[in-house]
Amino acid sequence: MTSDECQNFDIQYSLFNIRYSIFCNMETVLRFKHEDLLDFVVRYMTKLGVPAGDAKIVGNVLICADIRGVESHGLHRLGSYYGNRISKGWIDPLTPFKIISETPSTALIDGGNGCGQVVSHKAMKMTIEKAKSAGIAAITVRNSNHYGIAGYYAMMAMRKGMIGISLTNSQPLVAPTFGRTAVLGTNPIAMAAPSDKAYPFLLDMATSAVAYGKIQVYEKKHEHIPIGWGIDEQGMPTNEPSLIKPGGHGALLPLGGMDITAGYKGYGLAVLVEILCSALSGGNFLTNVGGPGKPEPTGVSHFFMAINIEAFRPILDFKKHMDDMIALLKKSPLAVGRDEIHVAGEKEFEYAEFNEIHGVPLIKPIVDDLIMEGEKIGVPFDCPHVNE
Amino acid sequence: MTSDECQNFDIQYSLFNIRYSIFCNMETVLRFKHEDLLDFVVRYMTKLGVPAGDAKIVGNVLICADIRGVESHGLHRLGSYYGNRISKGWIDPLTPFKIISETPSTALIDGGNGCGQVVSHKAMKMTIEKAKSAGIAAITVRNSNHYGIAGYYAMMAMRKGMIGISLTNSQPLVAPTFGRTAVLGTNPIAMAAPSDKAYPFLLDMATSAVAYGKIQVYEKKHEHIPIGWGIDEQGMPTNEPSLIKPGGHGALLPLGGMDITAGYKGYGLAVLVEILCSALSGGNFLTNVGGPGKPEPTGVSHFFMAINIEAFRPILDFKKHMDDMIALLKKSPLAVGRDEIHVAGEKEFEYAEFNEIHGVPLIKPIVDDLIMEGEKIGVPFDCPHVNE
Repeated sequence: MTSDECQNFDIQYSLFNIRYSIFCNMETVLRFKHEDLLDFVVRYMTKLGVPAGDAKIVGNVLICADIRGVESHGLHRLGSYYGNRISKGWIDPLTPFKIISETPSTALIDGGNGCGQVVSHKAMKMTIEKAKSAGIAAITVRNSNHYGIAGYYAMMAMRKGMIGISLTNSQPLVAPTFGRTAVLGTNPIAMAAPSDKAYPFLLDMATSAVAYGKIQVYEKKHEHIPIGWGIDEQGMPTNEPSLIKPGGHGALLPLGGMDITAGYKGYGLAVLVEILCSALSGGNFLTNVGGPGKPEPTGVSHFFMAINIEAFRPILDFKKHMDDMIALLKKSPLAVGRDEIHVAGEKEFEYAEFNEIHGVPLIKPIVDDLIMEGEKIGVPFDCPHVNE
Repeated sequence: MTSDECQNFDIQYSLFNIRYSIFCNMETVLRFKHEDLLDFVVRYMTKLGVPAGDAKIVGNVLICADIRGVESHGLHRLGSYYGNRISKGWIDPLTPFKIISETPSTALIDGGNGCGQVVSHKAMKMTIEKAKSAGIAAITVRNSNHYGIAGYYAMMAMRKGMIGISLTNSQPLVAPTFGRTAVLGTNPIAMAAPSDKAYPFLLDMATSAVAYGKIQVYEKKHEHIPIGWGIDEQGMPTNEPSLIKPGGHGALLPLGGMDITAGYKGYGLAVLVEILCSALSGGNFLTNVGGPGKPEPTGVSHFFMAINIEAFRPILDFKKHMDDMIALLKKSPLAVGRDEIHVAGEKEFEYAEFNEIHGVPLIKPIVDDLIMEGEKIGVPFDCPHVNE
């Protein structure tokens, strides 16, 4: 892969800086067996007081991110987002969630300031069960914490022949149009839908123009960023990555960038997510949502929905429709210099298939980090790598 | 309003070229009583065989667009999108819709190639009724036609104390990322949520970077467009508006623009809309969806959803939350040179209030067009203007 291709790859995926390292420095990647990593996470989390079943959920969600190439949301965060916060008493390891209100097709759950993955996994399971009989169901969760990749929960519904939707609010990093400080989270939207022969559809996107990590990559490389990714402390567009430090000065821009390129739409989508998550659940909102470094409950809110396709039309017809639609997209005429049109999720499904065979890829700095996090609480990271 | 302010106003709203005329040439605007215009539409549509009650629905949806400043979707289209197509037998004036499948919280409706507004109004009413008892409900419609502004139906649910969602696919104008031809519609996403003291939230946005009409404005003014709005016939970004003629050559770009500014997210959102509308209903998709000029049924599909807030938490608490959230957004620090942060829908609600008092604004060319369309079928446009 040339340097240009590598950069392009990075740009297309809009992921974290680690991806850049992985694809530019293949030698730094170590590969592990899925079950070995899961076993480590279970030992690590149970040592912190998380019940074994819950620990397995957390591990599966984190490892799923690494397998799909979304390293920013994977094991990389085991300590900083979860373990350290549990150790300090900022996350309740028992996830004592409570159902506050419930109907056959809806529920409102208080996450008990527990592990975001645990309550979210249970909430999406409930959503799917409700949608089985009701046709469509939605559950909101308040008083939770970071839940990992949004797409994980959307895919749970997809695997049951449903359309799954998963949204969450998050710590402020994004400015509203015409603002100059971080007020909104990157508030992702994930939707998954099953197909037959083609890879399923999985959109899992932040409603910001880019992830903050991508701006950090450019800063490290001493390169300019494109206009439209972020603003400086005056609220002016900038191509200088060091001027964008959400929480300190400057902010990310919503999807679309500045107003002239329709950034107000990305801003509107971020508020849409905020409404379905926090307004519908009564959870923390906007600048009141905490991040991983905040020494108190973050109060994150989530929204889950499942649409039972069979309530509308036979699932086989739907899947055929998806295949035909995806085929039509993929065979449409290419721009000069491009060699393929992709559909949301496709590259990640392909990458995951490769990694399920060859091992879960982790770059050396993350492995070192896991060793260090393990040592902190006396749980050795002793997974052998399986590099060929 | 200065020329710069005028352009800025145009850019912010992302609407049709007519807006530019309205705000730059105030003298060309004629104002009419809502009920006079509605009466004209009813006489016009009934003459074409549309039942009076249905004609009133069409009129209300179209006039609502003009009142809210979305002239592109208002009476401007009465002839070209609706009347002429009914006259030619391409839309069935009786809208013989059929419920294909139904559960207490879902339905699939065949629109009978009737008026998009009529079946959509009925579908959203059904959705609201179902959500009243089920908590959440969704209905898809296939074999329909253009339904006007997506936000109209979302607001129907909002006025009943629910969150309303309305989506539709549409004729191909937008290229997928790395493509070079129009394959996707501008596939709008609309969501409305009630508030108490603040204006309600109403996001009503195309998933393209801009509307095609906006590119036409720049072409007429012989001005360049920003990079990110559209591509030429090679699929390359262009600042030359005349190179973008979807259906002929070039195409609009999805929200986000090129891939480097995350256009693949807007592309993903357009496919999300396509799935919920056409895959869930079995309707036409992508390039098989027709536009107003196509001499056959367009086969447009819609998706409606209503979330009964009371199923989750007391509506008053929700509305208070909305007010607090909107206040926090609006009082967040401003970018240099900006004087207000807006929330989706706010300006349109404000503009609508003004117009309900002072009369529905129509520019002279649209009035002339309505006179001409009326003459074609012997229904005189004899509404007196009420300009002060």
